[in-house]
Amino acid sequence: MDQVFYPKFSRLAITGGTHGNELTGVYIVRQMQKQNINQIGSVSVCPILANPPAIEACKRYIDTDLNRCFTDVTLSTPVTDSSPLEVKRAHELNSLLGPKGSDRAMDLVCDLHNTTSNMGLCFIIDVTDCIPLHIAKYVQTKMPSAPIRFFNTNRASSSEAYCVDSVGKHGFAIEVGPQPNGVLRADIYNMMKEAIDHTLDWLNKFNAGTTFEGGQLDTFVLERSVDYPRDPKTNELTAIVHPQLQDNDFKLLQSGDPIFKTFSGETLNYEGEDLYPVFINECAYYEKKIAFHLGQKKTITLPPISVRTD
Amino acid sequence: MDQVFYPKFSRLAITGGTHGNELTGVYIVRQMQKQNINQIGSVSVCPILANPPAIEACKRYIDTDLNRCFTDVTLSTPVTDSSPLEVKRAHELNSLLGPKGSDRAMDLVCDLHNTTSNMGLCFIIDVTDCIPLHIAKYVQTKMPSAPIRFFNTNRASSSEAYCVDSVGKHGFAIEVGPQPNGVLRADIYNMMKEAIDHTLDWLNKFNAGTTFEGGQLDTFVLERSVDYPRDPKTNELTAIVHPQLQDNDFKLLQSGDPIFKTFSGETLNYEGEDLYPVFINECAYYEKKIAFHLGQKKTITLPPISVRTD
Repeated sequence: MDQVFYPKFSRLAITGGTHGNELTGVYIVRQMQKQNINQIGSVSVCPILANPPAIEACKRYIDTDLNRCFTDVTLSTPVTDSSPLEVKRAHELNSLLGPKGSDRAMDLVCDLHNTTSNMGLCFIIDVTDCIPLHIAKYVQTKMPSAPIRFFNTNRASSSEAYCVDSVGKHGFAIEVGPQPNGVLRADIYNMMKEAIDHTLDWLNKFNAGTTFEGGQLDTFVLERSVDYPRDPKTNELTAIVHPQLQDNDFKLLQSGDPIFKTFSGETLNYEGEDLYPVFINECAYYEKKIAFHLGQKKTITLPPISVRTD
Repeated sequence: MDQVFYPKFSRLAITGGTHGNELTGVYIVRQMQKQNINQIGSVSVCPILANPPAIEACKRYIDTDLNRCFTDVTLSTPVTDSSPLEVKRAHELNSLLGPKGSDRAMDLVCDLHNTTSNMGLCFIIDVTDCIPLHIAKYVQTKMPSAPIRFFNTNRASSSEAYCVDSVGKHGFAIEVGPQPNGVLRADIYNMMKEAIDHTLDWLNKFNAGTTFEGGQLDTFVLERSVDYPRDPKTNELTAIVHPQLQDNDFKLLQSGDPIFKTFSGETLNYEGEDLYPVFINECAYYEKKIAFHLGQKKTITLPPISVRTD
């Protein structure tokens, strides 16, 4: 593939606490703020707590999920006094880090998340974009012992992308788990910190003229979601993720494999094409009616890239 | 030791959702209620959701920790409109399951909990009482592959005991982990369900005249608690549980062993007598200023027991 050229990455935003009970990002950002980190090599760094009231309450959100508020539609609708707290905050963050889609936007927004699922270290990329994929590939080579995967939610366009990192010219989320909400584990903290350090290395090398060779990368592309079996009247679960599926994120699920166990002891099996389960039994997805996502493995060929020098 | 005789156990209460975000007990109790389980052999069974508003909100509690509201002092103070929701509920539960210390009280209250710590299946006993210890010993022999321990909080008297299970003539909590709050894992659910089934077997065997032989039992007796290092001004953590301590509940901690890692990278070591850490990095204890408890191993000699037939 032909080499592709991009402008320098001058401005990086690192957002933590977009979900207030996911503590790794909260503490990483607080540490960067305490140490007054605002420039690393050629990159200006803006560490920011995305949802301080939710962090204070140690809740995912106060009124609504902040990380669903960054579509063009939501950002272009004027806020009023009665707008949800997170919609107001999305407009503020869009001013600070964006505006989304504009020349003034951050070159890269890296948003930090935790999951209760056994996801390891996962880069979540909304729209196919070779910059986050190149960075993710680089981090993977630097952390060979960590389970690192790439999950592409496969949105049609950036305007539909609803996450905070879509406000930047480029963006991705780092999702590390398993970690319970409201808990800070050293192993998870160290894994995320190391991934951020390698991201900064990549940006500085890129800015200094390093060509990053192309190559192939296995990604997981969101196909569909599966809900828990529920009582149609009460909405309560009638089954639980099967022990053979629990913790087996990114392991191929085939027709006939057990996926749920009902409280009366019956095993429910998967029927459908072979796919990869992701975010299995994630705490925050109970209310979103998602027991797990299913994704297809797709190999992406990345072009070699380097900095535009003109 | 001489054999000790106890009256039959006619009435068992099983309480779930005392903490509304600890889902295993919530779902076990709901299932028992749906199946209209109210008698198993010689034992009448009362499955009860202890804190429905907290369960609805999927929070530990609404106003205050319900499982700290059952001291004689709190239960003897009249409630008013402005009493915390959980204090009102403690009075209701005391009427339903107690009154604490009276002849009318449930023979046994078994309260179901989860922890984010790597505790396995732990019986928590507030006041030294050989009934819960005998039951725990029996369950241990029936579930040899499960990590089962006995933790004694060592209160001076039942009147000081603040947990819901102190309302019964006998009581204990079953604490199973690790499980994130707000998540239901099949392995944890099965472990707790099996422990309850064995408890019911024990009660029925006891009532039918089986003599349970005495013997020795290793218990862990609460000695003291250790908080996270914190910033004295903001109260925020300045260190995190060390990876070498994390998940190592019930493994002997010796002077010089690492216990915390500061965000600046420094390792803090334990100083003091050899003790056993328990509830390491439990989510709900951040606000209680407890990074872990420390306990002493104590071998208890249990007398043989059987039913009083007079």
